[in-house]
Amino acid sequence: MPLKNTSIKTKVKKINKNKQPLFIIRKKIDKIDNKIHDLLIERAELVKDVINEKRKESNSGIIIYRPAREHEILLRLIKRHKGIISVTSLISIWRKLISTYISIQGLFKVTFAGNIDEIVNHHFGSDIKKIKNKSSISCLNKLANNLCNIAILPFPSKKNDWWIKLTNYSNISVVGSLCDSVSGDIEALVLSTQKIEYASNNISLYTSKITSKNLKKYSDFLTCNGFIIICKKLLTSKSYIILFYTKIYSELENKGKLRIIDSYKFDDNIQTRLVGVFSSIDKEIING
Amino acid sequence: MPLKNTSIKTKVKKINKNKQPLFIIRKKIDKIDNKIHDLLIERAELVKDVINEKRKESNSGIIIYRPAREHEILLRLIKRHKGIISVTSLISIWRKLISTYISIQGLFKVTFAGNIDEIVNHHFGSDIKKIKNKSSISCLNKLANNLCNIAILPFPSKKNDWWIKLTNYSNISVVGSLCDSVSGDIEALVLSTQKIEYASNNISLYTSKITSKNLKKYSDFLTCNGFIIICKKLLTSKSYIILFYTKIYSELENKGKLRIIDSYKFDDNIQTRLVGVFSSIDKEIING
Repeated sequence: MPLKNTSIKTKVKKINKNKQPLFIIRKKIDKIDNKIHDLLIERAELVKDVINEKRKESNSGIIIYRPAREHEILLRLIKRHKGIISVTSLISIWRKLISTYISIQGLFKVTFAGNIDEIVNHHFGSDIKKIKNKSSISCLNKLANNLCNIAILPFPSKKNDWWIKLTNYSNISVVGSLCDSVSGDIEALVLSTQKIEYASNNISLYTSKITSKNLKKYSDFLTCNGFIIICKKLLTSKSYIILFYTKIYSELENKGKLRIIDSYKFDDNIQTRLVGVFSSIDKEIING
Repeated sequence: MPLKNTSIKTKVKKINKNKQPLFIIRKKIDKIDNKIHDLLIERAELVKDVINEKRKESNSGIIIYRPAREHEILLRLIKRHKGIISVTSLISIWRKLISTYISIQGLFKVTFAGNIDEIVNHHFGSDIKKIKNKSSISCLNKLANNLCNIAILPFPSKKNDWWIKLTNYSNISVVGSLCDSVSGDIEALVLSTQKIEYASNNISLYTSKITSKNLKKYSDFLTCNGFIIICKKLLTSKSYIILFYTKIYSELENKGKLRIIDSYKFDDNIQTRLVGVFSSIDKEIING
């Protein structure tokens, strides 16, 4: 009866294997994976419901990218987080999930320029189509002509001076930001023609064009009123443009801030503009 | 009583908002996110248990990277998948999770060479440290000297000829593969000094050094026996090295394949080596 013997041996071997602690733990992990998988499928169905509801509410194109909502989701999860997964990894996992759910909502086109490939690829995972452009201006033109949903540009500076051109694009606003996953530094801004939405905490960006001789006085005025100046750039021999920001907690508060800016009365030619509003998770929260 | 009036108005407004379908769906999504989050935390605890069990079983360093196990997890999930999330996205989400859980198991060092930055970054997410080397040989040296856990090198070809140098590194094997997330093509191979593990379906890689005059006859012999030749390269004026593979379903089957290769008796100087075994998800499975 060699055949029977062999089959008993195999059975005993299998039972022993099934009793090994590692085997039992791995079976538990598989069960958790199944549950996560089921929830991801269920979440996709709900995202489908969201799209249908949005279509009912609006005849025009639906807004797929919702950075303020993403921010609130992440903040809520960070608050309830515990265990050995780092907050950075938690954010990174949810960015991956959010990218996946953006991609199932329809064709979502991203354009970007500058040396920000890595951060763009990390933020908007492999499911989303991203096209790199030679210049920031060509990104803004694409956006203005509805050839893409969002444009991502390097954080404003004297060198990355796309922000001085924004006055030519009245329908484009900054609506989001991309952070370095490790340092938490804001490395790029997201621009779109969609409506500005407010999260529970936001950074509001403004530009002012001002006569050169008033530059010092106006800068002091902004600083005294709690605004932080990011960059100043000479436009003509007689005028400067200043980019500055402040933290705000609501749309109402932003209206108040704009009233403060408008209260500066020492320059008749001043032109101030709300460039956009974006939320970003504080470094302190990421680093615990 | 203006105060009371206002508070009633606010309450009514809030109740109306809470009854909006979009608000209700988003609350359901938040609940699902919480459940996924809880399961991710629970899974991390089980991964900690796995590490403790591995430490009990082995006094030497524990193996963190388990491509055969990863393969089985992905295959199982693909089989039970349904809904609007693509299989590519499903794989991409789990790769992200697997990378996170690799990173919490301890310091895991990846080295790579060649033009495979994007695929390496996609496969091993931002949680894992990856160092690019100038040459494949320096990657192999790092691996041989235990300066990293795995080395990732471009798929073997005449140009990417690191595979002809493997005969100098007896303790290094191919243990895994990296696919392009869209096409499903194998773009890179993972090498390690760790033990070869078998998934439910595998690709087994071999090299043979053979006298030049026997090249044609030996190539025919391999092809007739179901092996597929990837590359042939001239070593000296009198010898060639051939890289070839076959699909296998178990370690036992691999032993049988090696016996077939060894049955070639027309070259006394032939030297055959099992280069490694790796699993990769079939393109047909990815594309449905």
